[in-house]
Amino acid sequence: MVEASGIRAVTRCDALGTAPYSQSEQGLYRGYLSPAYHATVDLVGAWMVEAGMRVDLDPAANLRGRYEGAAPGAPALVIGSHLDSVRDGGCYDGPLGVMLGIECVAALHEQGRRLPFAVEVYGFGDEEGSRFPAAMLTSRAVAGTLDADLDRIADAEGVSLEVALASFKTDYDVVTAKTPTNTFSTQTYRAARRAPEDILAYLEAHIEQGPVLEAEGLALGTVTGIATQLRYAAAVRGMAGHAGTSSMPLRRDALAGAAEMVLTIEDIARADGSDLVATVGKLEAIPGAANVIPGEVRFTIDVRSGDAVRRDRAAQDILARLEQIASKRSLVLDLALVHDLPASPCDPALMDLMDAAMVEAGQPVRRLVSGAGHDAMVMAALCPTAMLFIRCKDGVSHNPAEHVEPADADAALRVMLGFIDRLGDSFADRP
Amino acid sequence: MVEASGIRAVTRCDALGTAPYSQSEQGLYRGYLSPAYHATVDLVGAWMVEAGMRVDLDPAANLRGRYEGAAPGAPALVIGSHLDSVRDGGCYDGPLGVMLGIECVAALHEQGRRLPFAVEVYGFGDEEGSRFPAAMLTSRAVAGTLDADLDRIADAEGVSLEVALASFKTDYDVVTAKTPTNTFSTQTYRAARRAPEDILAYLEAHIEQGPVLEAEGLALGTVTGIATQLRYAAAVRGMAGHAGTSSMPLRRDALAGAAEMVLTIEDIARADGSDLVATVGKLEAIPGAANVIPGEVRFTIDVRSGDAVRRDRAAQDILARLEQIASKRSLVLDLALVHDLPASPCDPALMDLMDAAMVEAGQPVRRLVSGAGHDAMVMAALCPTAMLFIRCKDGVSHNPAEHVEPADADAALRVMLGFIDRLGDSFADRP
Repeated sequence: MVEASGIRAVTRCDALGTAPYSQSEQGLYRGYLSPAYHATVDLVGAWMVEAGMRVDLDPAANLRGRYEGAAPGAPALVIGSHLDSVRDGGCYDGPLGVMLGIECVAALHEQGRRLPFAVEVYGFGDEEGSRFPAAMLTSRAVAGTLDADLDRIADAEGVSLEVALASFKTDYDVVTAKTPTNTFSTQTYRAARRAPEDILAYLEAHIEQGPVLEAEGLALGTVTGIATQLRYAAAVRGMAGHAGTSSMPLRRDALAGAAEMVLTIEDIARADGSDLVATVGKLEAIPGAANVIPGEVRFTIDVRSGDAVRRDRAAQDILARLEQIASKRSLVLDLALVHDLPASPCDPALMDLMDAAMVEAGQPVRRLVSGAGHDAMVMAALCPTAMLFIRCKDGVSHNPAEHVEPADADAALRVMLGFIDRLGDSFADRP
Repeated sequence: MVEASGIRAVTRCDALGTAPYSQSEQGLYRGYLSPAYHATVDLVGAWMVEAGMRVDLDPAANLRGRYEGAAPGAPALVIGSHLDSVRDGGCYDGPLGVMLGIECVAALHEQGRRLPFAVEVYGFGDEEGSRFPAAMLTSRAVAGTLDADLDRIADAEGVSLEVALASFKTDYDVVTAKTPTNTFSTQTYRAARRAPEDILAYLEAHIEQGPVLEAEGLALGTVTGIATQLRYAAAVRGMAGHAGTSSMPLRRDALAGAAEMVLTIEDIARADGSDLVATVGKLEAIPGAANVIPGEVRFTIDVRSGDAVRRDRAAQDILARLEQIASKRSLVLDLALVHDLPASPCDPALMDLMDAAMVEAGQPVRRLVSGAGHDAMVMAALCPTAMLFIRCKDGVSHNPAEHVEPADADAALRVMLGFIDRLGDSFADRP
């Protein structure tokens, strides 16, 4: 039997990167409830069994392994992440967190250790939303925060969630609150919900999907929370004109105005000097001909921070400065709020346990906010959450070039095991 | 008989704005050699005859009227502009210059005046290049600068220029150097060329297609020349990244870099404080998603001035500053020169005649460069050229909203007649 290791976790992610675990031969794609997802659940379930877990699927088709604590039926530490993958994605975004959960249990199992709590590993079926137009469907079902009308969800090929669920035959037990079954449906979907008293905490390891750890030469980081996000759609209107015949002082150039706005947004975010980020990702100049002064420009503004007060202050500053620029240039500015997503802070006590585990494992302590969303932000509605970020090459994700050093994954495993030890100690201190 | 007037010129342009003089019922479109062009040639030719001219088509299917001078066979002042129109265009861009030429001759004819030179009015068939992928085909044939391979030119429907010419049956004489005919072909096309000794000068009245005259409350302007133009294609490459997970100091945001470049280009052109204009008309951010930092931006740079030295100085300044911005931001900048069109200055002596005619007509003297191209820039290879700009509403052209005040066209006619008088005087002074 191979000893538990982060290196094996990486190797297993690599093994899941091609058919039958990918729907595509060119680049990984694993949509929720697809044949590739089915094959993945079967294989990862077998690894869970091998690590000493009892395995089933929940009514949302999440793969779930349970390693009992010293006393049967004890509340569980859930270690999870997602098994689905975006189109043309990388091997580690999601699966690495599931594999590291399995390695944690495998290590406990090797040592024959039982903790004062159970450990469950979840492989969530849908985090990316890359098949159905709704992200984090399955962790929302677990957390009990799923308010979507499931009977109205269908994929791009017109396959409804209901049909996809009914077609997903499994040999695993599907555990509902009442009796085991082997079938799925939108009617029983919400039975995936867990009772808060049964869940002690949630731990997720995930690649950073950003360049911060790599830039600082760090393998790991303690996540302080998922950033709060504001998204705006902006439209700047000036006057189109002939590029040769409109003298400079008479122009109302929507693109020059938008350019000044883009730089102002960057300035404000840079000046904040914190975790705050602001991005103009999409920008369209209309009519878009080399010999025509743009009469209209449409662009997006995305503002994120771990701290909502900081985020809102920056957003207010941005909006005020953009209005000034528009006014100075005789442009018309329309701004529409598209998203306002609240922050999901990680639990402070769990962050302290994580930092302590980092120190013990010889890793420098670094706390950072997650600018991307994760299942942890959903699970926060159910229980205290903790997240560990793992360095990824060039900060690249959602791309076949996504890469994690096996040694970093192994360091992550050591920190997670230290975290679990400390959680056991803190559990022992409970009244 | 209606007296010659600029108001009639505008009314006639309006009359040419719909079928059968337009190929489209929604918005004016008159492609070279189309049935709408045929109908227009027939009607405008009749107006030329009515004004006292002998009318024919040249081998490039340009409509041509000639009003003889005091001595038959004298060299001619050519007054011209184009009869073709872009898709969804306005009524005045082109035809107004032809109609004003006819009014000039009509005024001479009414007074029974013969000048020491002939006056010819040309209605050019192709200036816009809106049917065949080659602009100013027909004035280039007249000026003898047509170096295109005519047998390889075809329109978007696959109709070759040769077939279009052969199909263009006319009742007018088609005058070649040898004998009149009634047919057209690419073989005889270049016989439209005029001998320099037969052409005294070229005069073109055209709508400004820009906002300068309107902004200054002026009806008319003396054109100093067609601006020289440089066009570049720029590509800025940074690093794409997740909008939430890439901290501000680590970003290499291609759009923020491009925005700084757009503002710098605007600054340099504004600081020049002359006729120089610089425009970024087309800009594309890639990949163009709200949650992704743009990794690449492609944009165009268009720089024009009446003065090539000024233009080149500004372009050098722009290129140097863009390199600095790219270097400061760790971006890669690729710049490719797309066009380098020389300036076409109007004749200084003819500009003086025009200014004098403006003063006599009670119009303030205003000289301005043309940022757009015109047949005059082609004719400059054949003879001295003069251009008169006429104010157009909001500087709008290539749009159904194109509008000219009839009073402004009438003022233009007065100035053109004054110009012709003065040209006669200067002709009389010749040795």
